[in-house]
Amino acid sequence: MPEKVIIIGSGPAGWTAAIYAARANLEPLVFAGRPKSSPSLVLPGGQLMLTTDVENYPGFPEGVTGPKMMAYFEQQAVRFGTRIVTDEGMNPDVSDPDDGHSSKYQDCKSVDFSSRPFTVVGEDDKVYESHSVIVATGATANWIGLENEQRLAISGGGVSACAVCDGAMPIFRNKELGVVGGGDSAVEEATYLTKFASKVYMIHRRDKLRASKIMQKRALDNPKIEVLWNKVVVDVLGDASITGVRLRDTGTDEESDRQLGGLFVAIGHTPATEFLQGQLELDAKGYVKLKDTYRSTTSVEGVFAAGDVSDSVYRQAVTAAGMGCKAAMDAERWLADQGLD
Amino acid sequence: MPEKVIIIGSGPAGWTAAIYAARANLEPLVFAGRPKSSPSLVLPGGQLMLTTDVENYPGFPEGVTGPKMMAYFEQQAVRFGTRIVTDEGMNPDVSDPDDGHSSKYQDCKSVDFSSRPFTVVGEDDKVYESHSVIVATGATANWIGLENEQRLAISGGGVSACAVCDGAMPIFRNKELGVVGGGDSAVEEATYLTKFASKVYMIHRRDKLRASKIMQKRALDNPKIEVLWNKVVVDVLGDASITGVRLRDTGTDEESDRQLGGLFVAIGHTPATEFLQGQLELDAKGYVKLKDTYRSTTSVEGVFAAGDVSDSVYRQAVTAAGMGCKAAMDAERWLADQGLD
Repeated sequence: MPEKVIIIGSGPAGWTAAIYAARANLEPLVFAGRPKSSPSLVLPGGQLMLTTDVENYPGFPEGVTGPKMMAYFEQQAVRFGTRIVTDEGMNPDVSDPDDGHSSKYQDCKSVDFSSRPFTVVGEDDKVYESHSVIVATGATANWIGLENEQRLAISGGGVSACAVCDGAMPIFRNKELGVVGGGDSAVEEATYLTKFASKVYMIHRRDKLRASKIMQKRALDNPKIEVLWNKVVVDVLGDASITGVRLRDTGTDEESDRQLGGLFVAIGHTPATEFLQGQLELDAKGYVKLKDTYRSTTSVEGVFAAGDVSDSVYRQAVTAAGMGCKAAMDAERWLADQGLD
Repeated sequence: MPEKVIIIGSGPAGWTAAIYAARANLEPLVFAGRPKSSPSLVLPGGQLMLTTDVENYPGFPEGVTGPKMMAYFEQQAVRFGTRIVTDEGMNPDVSDPDDGHSSKYQDCKSVDFSSRPFTVVGEDDKVYESHSVIVATGATANWIGLENEQRLAISGGGVSACAVCDGAMPIFRNKELGVVGGGDSAVEEATYLTKFASKVYMIHRRDKLRASKIMQKRALDNPKIEVLWNKVVVDVLGDASITGVRLRDTGTDEESDRQLGGLFVAIGHTPATEFLQGQLELDAKGYVKLKDTYRSTTSVEGVFAAGDVSDSVYRQAVTAAGMGCKAAMDAERWLADQGLD
């Protein structure tokens, strides 16, 4: 018997889809994936496993840690009958947020959406059939790739890939901050951070910004923003918290240190959609294209998408969760339409 | 000095918009409204003030009561600098979830979006100016209008206006349930409830359904659904929990009692948009039209909408919260574009 719905991913979108699908008696099966070594950490729990304090997910007035929040989501999904694919079969057990997630959660290796029921293949090559699939594999922030950058990002030591998520934290108030990147979102992040920072240095490897004209103007006109041209970050300095960065000039190769109270890396995101190539319509950047942006429908009927994997604009835990809810409701209604529930 | 952003509404969308706007240093001003006598309860806290147990808002594995959840949202918004308009001026104090919300929160009486900055007028006729406005006034479920219906809805006694929210609750398992209504969403609710119920009676005042052909067929073909034609509910029976309904035949005026373990009222919703007539483009049912359904933009630049006021499809706390986040991020970026932040 094919499954009614398989959910791939275990960030806010995936677990929320599981909560709603489980409550609709669809007995969802989740490929939660396994922790991958950062900087490519995607699953399980998604990007939030890299986040110490989440202060903007509504419902937690005092904030909550990312891993704890994801454990709550998972517990809630399991409570209503979600099954998780593990190396040892279906596991309704919930990971311990203090020990981190279990490493035995299965990732999805490949999918075939060309015939029905769809097939989803696990890492162990077991084949699962399903009438519908919700893709919620997320996107990873691109990092420079430095050991100290990763260490301070994971420990909440003042390195972040999301100004909207973390910019308002007290540790960044009235500090000199750095933003790495030269595109539109780097300018957006830098502008956003000027609300809190005494000064924002944009660190860019070239001698002009990649951002659109209007965004360039916004950055260059802002007295709080200064661009450090032709510079790359070669190390992030500081033990418990960032104290600065080591820069290398791309022209002269000269190195210099710059004191900073925080570093925001804004060099794009990579959606986790490689396994969907040829199966689902993706946009130029690899994000899953939604057929109707109000809903979660994709180019294949019966396949739904939710969260950062199909959102390059907002990327917030609560927007991803909202999309996960929509995907489960869309799947439920589609299955009912087809008489497959 | 005009405000940067005024938020009208205090459901999940309004408070989430406030959390994000406050964290972006926009110092949002919220018209949270005041408790209105049910069944027209809209503000503050929105529809959730009518909800005892919320089990599907992700992050609360054991569930949370609606009023407590809304108090958490409010506390979080206030923590980051949200101001609330009250009879006594701006009030950063947070209502006590156990005492219910304070009655002195101001509602918004009217708006003028025809000139900039926009004006928003409070109940006390005080005029506030703002560069941007987020409309999050929600929608109310339409009720039959019976005293016992309202009593049992508010107390969680088995009367509800949302099958997706409440249908999975243990009290409804293997019970005979009633659905009031004959439109598409009544059929949708009835079909959804067959997953849990032993039988679902659709109670409809006419001799045919208003639902589309395909939805009619779905209801009539489902062995678990039986339509009670030409019947209106004239009373809801039961003390702590519903035990049944009293029906009147619209042809013969004869009354009869029907035992039921739950009643779902599915006779539509009314968005709280009367004060927006002529100010903002609304659809035929009165919902705020989004210019781009992926975003929160409306027919007036600088005015954003979020939550049930612009969503007639999903209406969930988490989808509304997601839209509130989008609206605040859209407002923040728009204000930055205009140099108004």
